[in-house]
Amino acid sequence: MSDLAIASRAVLKPISQIAEAAGIPEEAVESYGRYKAKIDPSHLPARNTELGKVVLVSGISPTPAGEGKSTVVVGLGEALSAAGAKTLIALREPSLGPIFGMKGGATGGGYSQVLPMDEINMHFTGDFHAITSANNLLMALIDNHLHRGNALGIDPRRITFKRVIDMNDRALRNIVIGLGGPTEGVPREAGFEITVASEVMAVFCLATGLEDLRTRLGRMTIGYTYEKKPVTVDDLGAAGAMTMLLKDAIKPNLVQTIGGTPAFIHGGPFANIAHGCNSAIATNTARSLADVVVTEAGFGADLGAEKFMDIKARYAGCEPSAVVIVATIRALKMHGGVAKDQLKGENVQAVRDGMVNLARHASNVRKFGIHPVIAVNKFTDDTVDELAVVTEWAAENNIECAVADVWGQGGAGAGDLAAAVLRAIEAPSDFAPLYELEKPVEEKILTVVKEIYGGAEVDYTPAAKRVLEQIHANGWDNLPVCMAKTQYSFSDDPTLLGAPEGFTLLVRDLIPKTGAGFIVAITGAIMTMPGLPKVPAAMHMDVDENGNAVGLS
Amino acid sequence: MSDLAIASRAVLKPISQIAEAAGIPEEAVESYGRYKAKIDPSHLPARNTELGKVVLVSGISPTPAGEGKSTVVVGLGEALSAAGAKTLIALREPSLGPIFGMKGGATGGGYSQVLPMDEINMHFTGDFHAITSANNLLMALIDNHLHRGNALGIDPRRITFKRVIDMNDRALRNIVIGLGGPTEGVPREAGFEITVASEVMAVFCLATGLEDLRTRLGRMTIGYTYEKKPVTVDDLGAAGAMTMLLKDAIKPNLVQTIGGTPAFIHGGPFANIAHGCNSAIATNTARSLADVVVTEAGFGADLGAEKFMDIKARYAGCEPSAVVIVATIRALKMHGGVAKDQLKGENVQAVRDGMVNLARHASNVRKFGIHPVIAVNKFTDDTVDELAVVTEWAAENNIECAVADVWGQGGAGAGDLAAAVLRAIEAPSDFAPLYELEKPVEEKILTVVKEIYGGAEVDYTPAAKRVLEQIHANGWDNLPVCMAKTQYSFSDDPTLLGAPEGFTLLVRDLIPKTGAGFIVAITGAIMTMPGLPKVPAAMHMDVDENGNAVGLS
Repeated sequence: MSDLAIASRAVLKPISQIAEAAGIPEEAVESYGRYKAKIDPSHLPARNTELGKVVLVSGISPTPAGEGKSTVVVGLGEALSAAGAKTLIALREPSLGPIFGMKGGATGGGYSQVLPMDEINMHFTGDFHAITSANNLLMALIDNHLHRGNALGIDPRRITFKRVIDMNDRALRNIVIGLGGPTEGVPREAGFEITVASEVMAVFCLATGLEDLRTRLGRMTIGYTYEKKPVTVDDLGAAGAMTMLLKDAIKPNLVQTIGGTPAFIHGGPFANIAHGCNSAIATNTARSLADVVVTEAGFGADLGAEKFMDIKARYAGCEPSAVVIVATIRALKMHGGVAKDQLKGENVQAVRDGMVNLARHASNVRKFGIHPVIAVNKFTDDTVDELAVVTEWAAENNIECAVADVWGQGGAGAGDLAAAVLRAIEAPSDFAPLYELEKPVEEKILTVVKEIYGGAEVDYTPAAKRVLEQIHANGWDNLPVCMAKTQYSFSDDPTLLGAPEGFTLLVRDLIPKTGAGFIVAITGAIMTMPGLPKVPAAMHMDVDENGNAVGLS
Repeated sequence: MSDLAIASRAVLKPISQIAEAAGIPEEAVESYGRYKAKIDPSHLPARNTELGKVVLVSGISPTPAGEGKSTVVVGLGEALSAAGAKTLIALREPSLGPIFGMKGGATGGGYSQVLPMDEINMHFTGDFHAITSANNLLMALIDNHLHRGNALGIDPRRITFKRVIDMNDRALRNIVIGLGGPTEGVPREAGFEITVASEVMAVFCLATGLEDLRTRLGRMTIGYTYEKKPVTVDDLGAAGAMTMLLKDAIKPNLVQTIGGTPAFIHGGPFANIAHGCNSAIATNTARSLADVVVTEAGFGADLGAEKFMDIKARYAGCEPSAVVIVATIRALKMHGGVAKDQLKGENVQAVRDGMVNLARHASNVRKFGIHPVIAVNKFTDDTVDELAVVTEWAAENNIECAVADVWGQGGAGAGDLAAAVLRAIEAPSDFAPLYELEKPVEEKILTVVKEIYGGAEVDYTPAAKRVLEQIHANGWDNLPVCMAKTQYSFSDDPTLLGAPEGFTLLVRDLIPKTGAGFIVAITGAIMTMPGLPKVPAAMHMDVDENGNAVGLS
């Protein structure tokens, strides 16, 4: 059965009932249809016990298909609920781009899904549309400023901010705007990014409240003057209207899993040029309601988990008590040297050889003072001997580990994993970020490369060196770094699988995101506007005679 | 007090209560927050009595400030409710473009507003965002088709469909896309329109159900092949996914007026290159629930009312039983020859001289077999003698007429108007559209120009003549015409006020909208993407410490 078929057979509870069970008072619930609601944190009672513990689900260096982190989040959340822990799930919202392109939606899969699947995947409560509007209002104001005399002296060639659209639209990557003569704007080179790549999205997901949101928006750098001085949103006076457009979107969205566990689905920044987690407000609201919050960070633990600790946890105070590292037998085989088209069939030695990748991720998590938990996301053709390689290694290394069948069984398939996680979060932990903010940017990058990636050195292109000088000159040195690197390898070379060592990482460019509050270090070709494939998924989509979605995946 | 201040002091009823009072069963109500809901027409009981009567609110040829049609709709709706008629209001949704630009929102004004004002003006239930997404998914698919080999042979120079954004963004009017080399799409000239100008919006507002919506979307012409054959959305295979994006948006949105009268706010196409009314589904759903449905059409009666009768009523079967023509003393003075900056101060003769404009609109309404009702929208400095000019003329000409103070008093200021409307809709009427669809396009245009505008002839530019040939060749002759003309004059010259005669109307271009189902006749400069003013309204907007909108108007 397809995910959509499983989802549409599920019997949902009214969202008011889910909210009540989660301890959310009625006055905080703003229903959006029968099965979605926005929760207003200002109407929640203050928690008089310790905040809920955060379980961060991350993964090993993935295969192109992904290792099922969201599915594990959902199944684990259900299993923790079933084990009696008061649990809330916090996940990112899906983008329309991959839905109509190739990858599909982002609501889990099989019997571990958040519902209503079609509504979450399409429009949901309108948050991404609000973020798109806020971003594009800013851009309209910038180009209007140029057209109306350019009092700020903005250099049209040095506007770094772009318009966004929540769609895979290749033809908008590089465009020229303002053509048609003196009444039609000022001509300049420009482009669109996908909404999830916008700094507005990153700001939205790091803000701890409406005031913080406004401050961060105002602090965003939109470009430079002819004198190369940074120009911010506050210089332009646009932060108020942008915040107004986001005032309702900033409230977390409540939905439910197939098994009825409450889930916040809120925000969704890219995991390369941003930090790749759901909103801080959702995570923290969940912590004020539940005893355990299961959440996720994009890509492997070298990227997602590192950024969660060094960026999100630092800004929002939501450090994890345990990090779950999702592994699959197929990914381990790949790290063990097996080609992508040879992954079927038992190969115990390849799994054993691939363990170096998982081992380094686990060791990395410990560097933050946090307990790793290994979750093997079981596929039907995994063999007992293959699975034993992982569980035995974990036992030898004193790491919690469990095999989970979340796709096929939902929470019922993650009982052992839930028990492992509960043991891990009860053990004393001692969280600390990897680096001090006060260090220079180059030093912070080098620390990540040596400690997390296993590399030896960092090189900078001449372009990146110029931005480094700009960063020092503008006083942006105290920001954390946000690494934009391939997820397939610890290095910046996607073909170097396993646990490469001694390599030099090349930083091609640096992008200061002064509103979000980090410096993006670009180490490869980073796509901020995907394209559609030859036959987009959109071609198979429709509505049936009852008005239900068809062809979503 | 500002509209926002009045709106935020109003005490709203829960939307479930408004729905119940309107006879909407609980299973049809999908709440969006506390005070908005989508109503699913498929869950409404069939009406076993005659459908509610439609009262169409239109106006005389307006001043640039507008004559307050929406405000009259709201006040009249409240007054009809107070008079004991089971009433529903149906209005268009506001666009973000004018809100951040100059004109402001579109939720009525003073004590005649629909609420919650800030939410309706911003994002609302996401319909415009869904329409934007559907339009832009189509465009991404078109440019991807070009990039992937162009199997349909689409001429990139003859793509007539544009991307849209719900924002005033001048710099996007004329752009070049697909730059950057062979992996970045096919370079071509393109542009963005504001969302309300999209044919998707027009289709959305004329569709009578989801199936009709899909059919109309599929029928839209997106451009022409190298052989100049039209290419439709169905040729591309995009109608299914577009419909899926619109499946929830197509359900009408229920809100309330300050006085608690239920109102559907749904859809909002431009009144020039489209027909300028809320969705047919909202109007017809309202008719299935209420005895009287008060609705509006954009611009003056020569444009809005004519298109309502010849396009919307024809497709959706919702002919009006009465047409209210909103007049103001200031607009009458202007038609009487007074300059815009001299409108203050009593000037009875000017009002008398300006009556020719109102008289022709009233006479036009009768040509459709419908009773006109004159509503004088009273301003504080109108004098008794000025008002008497209108009421006495109406009495002499046997036309229902009332003075209403809807801005200052809400429904309480429209009691006489409600009584006049109730008399008008009880009188027997005999609706017929102005022209037969079978006539050639030129003949239909000439009929509108002679019968409604008072003109003598129609000229066509060479470009328009070429499109006429195309229309004949493609078999599009049987579509109604949608006139895109200045609203300030019956003619195509905005400075010809009053009731000009004998003029020749110049059709500069014709745009076949084969999905919406009309041929747009362009008679002047038509702006489909507005720009922002020197100081956009956005600059004064913000949120206060409680998270409420500030500076909306």
